[in-house]
Amino acid sequence: MLNLRTILRIIGLILFTEGVFMWFSIPVALIAGDHDSLQFLLSGAITSGIGALAYFTNRKRAIELNSRDGYVIVTGGWILFSLFGTLPFLLTGSIPSFTDAFFETISGFTTTGASILNNIEELSHGVLFWRSLIQWLGGMGIILLTLILLPFLGIGGMQLFSAEVPSPTPDKLHPHVKDTAKRLWIIYVLFTALETLLLWAGEMKFFDAMCHSLTTMATGGYSTKQASIAYWNSPYIQYVITFFMFVAGTNFTLAYFAMHGKLKKVWKDEEFRWYMVFVGGFALVITLGLFLTSGRGLEEAFRTSIFQVVSIITTTGFVTEDYLKWVPWMGVLIFILMFFGGSAGSTGGGPKIMRVVIMLKNSTMELKRMIHPNAVIPVRLNKFAVEERIVTNVLAFMAFYGIIAVISMGILSVMGNDLDTSIGAVTATLGNIGPGIGGVGPALNYADFPVAGKWFLSFLMLVGRLELFTVLILFSPIFWRR
Amino acid sequence: MLNLRTILRIIGLILFTEGVFMWFSIPVALIAGDHDSLQFLLSGAITSGIGALAYFTNRKRAIELNSRDGYVIVTGGWILFSLFGTLPFLLTGSIPSFTDAFFETISGFTTTGASILNNIEELSHGVLFWRSLIQWLGGMGIILLTLILLPFLGIGGMQLFSAEVPSPTPDKLHPHVKDTAKRLWIIYVLFTALETLLLWAGEMKFFDAMCHSLTTMATGGYSTKQASIAYWNSPYIQYVITFFMFVAGTNFTLAYFAMHGKLKKVWKDEEFRWYMVFVGGFALVITLGLFLTSGRGLEEAFRTSIFQVVSIITTTGFVTEDYLKWVPWMGVLIFILMFFGGSAGSTGGGPKIMRVVIMLKNSTMELKRMIHPNAVIPVRLNKFAVEERIVTNVLAFMAFYGIIAVISMGILSVMGNDLDTSIGAVTATLGNIGPGIGGVGPALNYADFPVAGKWFLSFLMLVGRLELFTVLILFSPIFWRR
Repeated sequence: MLNLRTILRIIGLILFTEGVFMWFSIPVALIAGDHDSLQFLLSGAITSGIGALAYFTNRKRAIELNSRDGYVIVTGGWILFSLFGTLPFLLTGSIPSFTDAFFETISGFTTTGASILNNIEELSHGVLFWRSLIQWLGGMGIILLTLILLPFLGIGGMQLFSAEVPSPTPDKLHPHVKDTAKRLWIIYVLFTALETLLLWAGEMKFFDAMCHSLTTMATGGYSTKQASIAYWNSPYIQYVITFFMFVAGTNFTLAYFAMHGKLKKVWKDEEFRWYMVFVGGFALVITLGLFLTSGRGLEEAFRTSIFQVVSIITTTGFVTEDYLKWVPWMGVLIFILMFFGGSAGSTGGGPKIMRVVIMLKNSTMELKRMIHPNAVIPVRLNKFAVEERIVTNVLAFMAFYGIIAVISMGILSVMGNDLDTSIGAVTATLGNIGPGIGGVGPALNYADFPVAGKWFLSFLMLVGRLELFTVLILFSPIFWRR
Repeated sequence: MLNLRTILRIIGLILFTEGVFMWFSIPVALIAGDHDSLQFLLSGAITSGIGALAYFTNRKRAIELNSRDGYVIVTGGWILFSLFGTLPFLLTGSIPSFTDAFFETISGFTTTGASILNNIEELSHGVLFWRSLIQWLGGMGIILLTLILLPFLGIGGMQLFSAEVPSPTPDKLHPHVKDTAKRLWIIYVLFTALETLLLWAGEMKFFDAMCHSLTTMATGGYSTKQASIAYWNSPYIQYVITFFMFVAGTNFTLAYFAMHGKLKKVWKDEEFRWYMVFVGGFALVITLGLFLTSGRGLEEAFRTSIFQVVSIITTTGFVTEDYLKWVPWMGVLIFILMFFGGSAGSTGGGPKIMRVVIMLKNSTMELKRMIHPNAVIPVRLNKFAVEERIVTNVLAFMAFYGIIAVISMGILSVMGNDLDTSIGAVTATLGNIGPGIGGVGPALNYADFPVAGKWFLSFLMLVGRLELFTVLILFSPIFWRR
């Protein structure tokens, strides 16, 4: 049985917090001299009020939460957060359609960054700030989820972060879960502040610097400008953002180690090494490609290449150039990168480096197993054998990822999209990237999708962000059986 | 150590047989009154001669073959068969380029059906017959391979056909491997003869009927006409071919049971049921789509739909219409079908129904496992639990399929193809289908690919046909270690 009251109490707390964060837009609006403070006050009051009501009417009871409750809290929490998160958009009239407002909010809260806005610069400062803040809060939620809750639920290899494997784990940071969360959040806040300062020191205004830092660290990709980062045309800004996107796509426990001078631990982490290999490899090839096929100098080619590669592999989705206008094969490489994703334990989406590596390793191990049928040949990560059970789970995750992608492309095409757009929209939303290919390329957006398409893509963003299983399990009949 | 002499002896036997089959084109040429009998005589003499030489100079020794020898024989045999198979094309001058001739031959022998020919009708009867015959021989080879050799090698779930699982298996047909092969080949020959008669009874000439039957039963898809089956514009012919394509995509042991009146065994086979579900489901949806969006009557919509669905799922690749000209979503469904493939133990290519089903089942089982972490929840096929080891192998197969496809698309795009053509060509060759999407759609062919592209696609056809592992294992360093 689900512990409904406890679930409601926790979701109440989440909503209460969200409402409080909505009020952060009030000083922004006042300082900027906009006239929509009242709308934020009201949005926050409604959200916090309902949250507080849910919290206080459901008294704490001494019942322990089970994993089913966990799934309902996570999925339900994300959906309700997105529902209430539409209030500032709706009440200020910046996004009048509920469908569009929900799409924009869940795209933010899932750190996807797919937008339906055709003229972002029209929005008030408070709304732009809220739009960035939901991504940042989504990133915070994801850190909590992947480092603390998912290993406990046993989802898709996230157990590898738990105490069973002698690798950098939250449990090694500190035995208490609450403290772990706090420490990682402090890192998250510090990085955001540092990036804000560095961007501000460049050509960005403080407001833009803050908004972009919020969405960089969340690997979200919402910008305050329609042209995204291309607006500034500044090498300095591009390098700063590239660096912080890369950091945001790294396991946050590694950032913790790095900040405490334990660089050797970071360097020894196998997922981090693969992350660097993939980023380095793709960036190198595309740098050469841009250098040879466009009139660019080597520095510009490198900068453009590394920015776009890091933006896509970390699933941030910031744009400095339309990669679909490059010589086609480079666009194809960018498209392939969309199936990697950030590191596990980062704010990045997608299948995750760790899973891709386990899948690749298991496939090559399978060749060895065929040559030596009687030998036990496990997949190794950080030099330790990964349990067969976890490997199967990771492979099932990758299979689900592919199956969901293929079925979704079919559904989108039935809704009237061409093949490229169907593939692009599914890849970009399921992977929480934002820009895709075809009709949702980096120069375009999701404004023209039909209403049904927007709701379906919203669902895909949620499924992708919550590591598939967390949402899919709710559709499994035995989940609801006693 | 490889038993090189024994390997050469067996490959010699294969080549000798191939040479003998080349002579089958001589009576065809004589009856048709063409003047290229001598070329076939010569081709056959060279091939048989070299084959006989390899056979007789490598005496039989009492050394048992090990699995490594098996891999080398299969991959080497397929490559050498394709190399010598180019002789009739080269010597008659029908395909002057060696690259093109090799592409056309390996496309035939792997039962792919991707062609570089721009004017098929120009070819002499003997050449057309040889082109059909290599597909038919490839189909025979595949029956031998998947039903007898692959289970022994332990490749990608093919063990499910071996004695371990109480389901229709070759071992149950008869304990001796040679007899099993003979029985299945007899069925193969009978079906080919039956289809020839039925097509001949329709609008087809005997020669065309024979050629098309050879390529239908192999799920190959080579036609004697540039327009493929659309040439005849005959509902009767379309229905006959649809039926035999469906049969060719079925596990041949089931055909054996059916011919012996054991229909219940056929009906109980789970892969066969899923095969019908997939064919039925896709055909139904596309029938409705064609009925509603084109001016067609219901019968024509159904006929067009079921023909194309069966042609693609069985990886035959015969064409009656350009599905890329339908309302786009139907083309997307056809594209998705390319990732199913025929039944295991059929002549069809692709990932195979059985593997797709095991992957789907394991994914849903994983949801159950997460709800009941301590329960042992196996994947079941034909009501029996599938060993974890086999499931991992099947998932590794599917992962390899995806990885190879993605890397290959990258390579093709670097060669200068657009995204659609890269995706289409990889899917159609790796899956041994023939027609794909983009620049290799059903109305087009592979003539304009650059030389490097043709060799690369030839490699993909081989990898796909030999169930990936058989070829990939040769690239594994430990395969060559003592």
